[in-house]
Amino acid sequence: YTVALHRAGRRFLVFARPGYAAPPGSDFFRSKAYISDVISGNSAHPLGDRTRYPHGSTVQVGGIRFGGGQSVIIAGPCSAETPEVLLETAAKVRESGASMLRVGVFKPRTSPYTFQGLGAAAFEALIEARSRYGLPIVSEITSVSQLDALLSTVDMLQVGARNMQNYPLLSALGTCDRPVLLKRGLAATVDEWLSAAEYLLAGGNEQVVLCERGIRTYERSTRFTLDLGVVPVLKGRTHLPVIVDPSHGTGRADLIHPMSRAAIAAGADGVIVEVHPRPAQALSDGFQSLDLPGFKQLVTELEPVAQAVGRPLHAYSDLQPV
Amino acid sequence: YTVALHRAGRRFLVFARPGYAAPPGSDFFRSKAYISDVISGNSAHPLGDRTRYPHGSTVQVGGIRFGGGQSVIIAGPCSAETPEVLLETAAKVRESGASMLRVGVFKPRTSPYTFQGLGAAAFEALIEARSRYGLPIVSEITSVSQLDALLSTVDMLQVGARNMQNYPLLSALGTCDRPVLLKRGLAATVDEWLSAAEYLLAGGNEQVVLCERGIRTYERSTRFTLDLGVVPVLKGRTHLPVIVDPSHGTGRADLIHPMSRAAIAAGADGVIVEVHPRPAQALSDGFQSLDLPGFKQLVTELEPVAQAVGRPLHAYSDLQPV
Amino acid sequence: YTVALHRAGRRFLVFARPGYAAPPGSDFFRSKAYISDVISGNSAHPLGDRTRYPHGSTVQVGGIRFGGGQSVIIAGPCSAETPEVLLETAAKVRESGASMLRVGVFKPRTSPYTFQGLGAAAFEALIEARSRYGLPIVSEITSVSQLDALLSTVDMLQVGARNMQNYPLLSALGTCDRPVLLKRGLAATVDEWLSAAEYLLAGGNEQVVLCERGIRTYERSTRFTLDLGVVPVLKGRTHLPVIVDPSHGTGRADLIHPMSRAAIAAGADGVIVEVHPRPAQALSDGFQSLDLPGFKQLVTELEPVAQAVGRPLHAYSDLQPV
Amino acid sequence: YTVALHRAGRRFLVFARPGYAAPPGSDFFRSKAYISDVISGNSAHPLGDRTRYPHGSTVQVGGIRFGGGQSVIIAGPCSAETPEVLLETAAKVRESGASMLRVGVFKPRTSPYTFQGLGAAAFEALIEARSRYGLPIVSEITSVSQLDALLSTVDMLQVGARNMQNYPLLSALGTCDRPVLLKRGLAATVDEWLSAAEYLLAGGNEQVVLCERGIRTYERSTRFTLDLGVVPVLKGRTHLPVIVDPSHGTGRADLIHPMSRAAIAAGADGVIVEVHPRPAQALSDGFQSLDLPGFKQLVTELEPVAQAVGRPLHAYSDLQPV
Repeated sequence: YTVALHRAGRRFLVFARPGYAAPPGSDFFRSKAYISDVISGNSAHPLGDRTRYPHGSTVQVGGIRFGGGQSVIIAGPCSAETPEVLLETAAKVRESGASMLRVGVFKPRTSPYTFQGLGAAAFEALIEARSRYGLPIVSEITSVSQLDALLSTVDMLQVGARNMQNYPLLSALGTCDRPVLLKRGLAATVDEWLSAAEYLLAGGNEQVVLCERGIRTYERSTRFTLDLGVVPVLKGRTHLPVIVDPSHGTGRADLIHPMSRAAIAAGADGVIVEVHPRPAQALSDGFQSLDLPGFKQLVTELEPVAQAVGRPLHAYSDLQPV
Repeated sequence: YTVALHRAGRRFLVFARPGYAAPPGSDFFRSKAYISDVISGNSAHPLGDRTRYPHGSTVQVGGIRFGGGQSVIIAGPCSAETPEVLLETAAKVRESGASMLRVGVFKPRTSPYTFQGLGAAAFEALIEARSRYGLPIVSEITSVSQLDALLSTVDMLQVGARNMQNYPLLSALGTCDRPVLLKRGLAATVDEWLSAAEYLLAGGNEQVVLCERGIRTYERSTRFTLDLGVVPVLKGRTHLPVIVDPSHGTGRADLIHPMSRAAIAAGADGVIVEVHPRPAQALSDGFQSLDLPGFKQLVTELEPVAQAVGRPLHAYSDLQPV
Repeated sequence: YTVALHRAGRRFLVFARPGYAAPPGSDFFRSKAYISDVISGNSAHPLGDRTRYPHGSTVQVGGIRFGGGQSVIIAGPCSAETPEVLLETAAKVRESGASMLRVGVFKPRTSPYTFQGLGAAAFEALIEARSRYGLPIVSEITSVSQLDALLSTVDMLQVGARNMQNYPLLSALGTCDRPVLLKRGLAATVDEWLSAAEYLLAGGNEQVVLCERGIRTYERSTRFTLDLGVVPVLKGRTHLPVIVDPSHGTGRADLIHPMSRAAIAAGADGVIVEVHPRPAQALSDGFQSLDLPGFKQLVTELEPVAQAVGRPLHAYSDLQPV
Repeated sequence: YTVALHRAGRRFLVFARPGYAAPPGSDFFRSKAYISDVISGNSAHPLGDRTRYPHGSTVQVGGIRFGGGQSVIIAGPCSAETPEVLLETAAKVRESGASMLRVGVFKPRTSPYTFQGLGAAAFEALIEARSRYGLPIVSEITSVSQLDALLSTVDMLQVGARNMQNYPLLSALGTCDRPVLLKRGLAATVDEWLSAAEYLLAGGNEQVVLCERGIRTYERSTRFTLDLGVVPVLKGRTHLPVIVDPSHGTGRADLIHPMSRAAIAAGADGVIVEVHPRPAQALSDGFQSLDLPGFKQLVTELEPVAQAVGRPLHAYSDLQPV
């Protein structure tokens, strides 16, 4: 085809392929109120394509901006275990230089017999941490049924690796007005990942940040293989900001420092790391969490690298209301 | 720990690890009405473990039995496109020897801009096909919100590769009384797959059939790499029946014949293949679909191999009510 | 270019690409004594291309023929450890139905501190086994320096997975008049594998048999992932015979039976399996070796599958002189 | 066993495993002239183990030192095509800040029909380049038969990815007194790589530098997946210096800059990159080669990153005689 129409809720997108005389057509389409965009080109994911915003787009979360030439550090525990642990971690990571707080409430766990996250019971502590320390919060959503509760509690919704191709979930998030952190599926190609982002964009939600978190390969000395090459690959193909998760990407706390430095040096717009006051006692993922002094050290090490590549660490900003 | 309790709805499971004096304890637990099972051993997925049913379990779908020493052939179109195509395919595959019909209604598609399946509009045709040709139907579920509609229409619910670790979906299916076909995630290890099955079993649904559908590797001459070695591996580790999908597993119609023969020879309890009267016109997956003469030929070829390994093709059986 | 010349020793190959007016040119070239072949087409590996021998080529080793519609079973110990073990194994596998003997003399071992094979010290036992039981022998070559000794001792030279892209070795074997068993590299694509074969063919040695032996993937329940889909893929792309090694391909003795059946059902021209009288005492690879009753059982199981797919087991044939 | 003896030429190594009373034994062994080392511990590759030199070892090549807290940049053409191109490249990369010259003479090429390198014909140009510009040279060896010629021409011998498990070649290099650059096999695990290095070390050659060059994964947007996580993994496990090859590791010239920065930030002791005055005309690998201004830009970008992580770029040093 040369012209195609895609319906996303009340909006329509028009795709004009090469060979179709774009100008007259697009003018015609653009004049219609129900047409949200006219896209031309050959891309399989035209809304996320770099050509749309050649200088890159930015995503605002609270007072934090992803993609505007600064490096964002997101830190926090794998999961909200107790209010005390959450508040202690939030206080310390903010003090050390984190820009945002990550915390798991609904945990997708491989086994049904392991800790599944606190669920809704954690919300009060999240709200407390957010208001007390002013850090925007990102937390994972694993089901559309959790959406309302999360929308009233957190600043950014994370789609985890295991749900990157959960299309009903993506479609639901596409109609929200809330930033989404879209992690790469653990065996997802760049094209599949950009197509997953396209579900969000096509629904009307353009506040999307991509997160490389390691892919599955034959190598066993790390839990996954952190594919840092994908950072500049994405920078060439999409306008969306890109961050890196060295905790999940390597599965080893001792690799978080070097791989965070490498991620920023490779061009990432930030990193997201797991931090726990006492990793050995964490209910999940302790082996890939920094302790509090380790996180402080991380920020100290990242600063000069971020400067060297011209994307300094994001300074603290006042929190915006959810 | 040595004894652990897992809650699944109103039921509880008790796990007794080695070192715990099982006999007295298990008698105590077994006497309680709210304890559904007492499991001992070291397995990470004790309910699916082979030791529980050393001769293997069977799963009944309509008049069809998976796992009882017969080879089941499931065939049908990738998706229900029109009632005519569906009915034509159902008539022909039954005539050629299929035991069950596969048909996609809710399709998880990589791109939001491609055909997404007919959705609920296909149900009438499914019911018609089912009642006219008496073939039990398996169809994919991608969201809990589709559950009620599918329960009233199809005989077996398929969890696709992309949802193998969609734990809220698995948990919901675990509380249903309907057989589930659980496909392997495209980069899932055997342990992750068995743990996903455990979500179903722990919820109380023991009617689970596993389906190998190819894993993602570096090799590009096939769409995925069909891992037939996993069939005997699973036979040693779980009592659940195992079938193979050579259509998705290879992504090439010309490989369906040899890989179906190989799957049965390796010990699979059946195969599931895509069939379309006119593959070149299919709205999805035509490149990996057999045409009708090709399917007939497949059955002819499978018969002697199935005989050679002592698991003859499943004879036609009367349909049971959904 | 449209015409290219490739020098291989004293011979030249001429490649005529589409667009070049082949007929007059090729007649001209064919009339020259130093031109060994004129090839046209677009293949990156024209000498091995299926179009050259659409019905497949055959390779003769002693009295055994690969590729002529029969299934060949090669069996023997991972390595020649003592003359007694070798002779005992040879006697028994022949009695049970093996057509050829495999035995390692020069072993490529991952660690320098493990048993490296007997080397030249094993030759006497090989010659004895060969003359006493009449089985042609295949053995691995890891260096050009071993060539003369092996040529005077064994019937077929194996290039192992780790040397599939050892081009000086391939080039040397290309100028020999001795059949070569070319195993797939453990992360080799089909194209790389066919290009490796092309080194042999371009040198003038057309007696090449390919052997799938498992590829490296993320899955850990088998040592490698046996890629049986590659068998029909190769059958469509090359005229060379193809066999399968389920011992190395799975790394588990308990999977040799089902995967050998599957290999034959998928269309392989034979299998090569490790057999040891007392696997637990083997100096290498005992975990993936059948014992003698296990091998006998394998032949019994393979017979009906081989019949079912129309490629019966190769009957015993008189040995030809090396 | 608790004590094992490994013969390497005229030397012997003694391995004492835990449980064996090391002190008396090792004194006894150490007193013998033919015992080169007594190693204790459980490592599968004891000579390369980090515990042997906890602060890391260094390797000297000409005036260049790998591993001593500086970052080395090696640059040059994929292969020596003409003396002019080689000399032009050498002059420019030295001027821009390269510490060493890389150049291919014997090329392992996937297809027998592509350019195979100049071979011995290139030696004169190498000698000229070396003496004129004073850069030590590293070049690949693919066969023991090339050893003498290369020893009299180049400063460091490279074992390429395809030969990482070519054990006869490794054994021969183990007895040389010449530094070796050992690239990772394209599907090699860390353990296999360290074991390959152990062949060199056990032979007596301790001048070994490891080079990560990308591993084979499912992802197709880069030629290989550059595994930078392996850099800190190796730093924890071996004392050997580690460098990174972003040209082969990504297969894309546009990714060399960001991935070189990331490699240094991750802790690598240097990078090796392909540079060609006119990449589009290169006989091989032009697509992954920088042009001369691109290389100059690379050095400019690497400088501040190298400073930021405390391992500044290696200053130019006088050439030592081969």
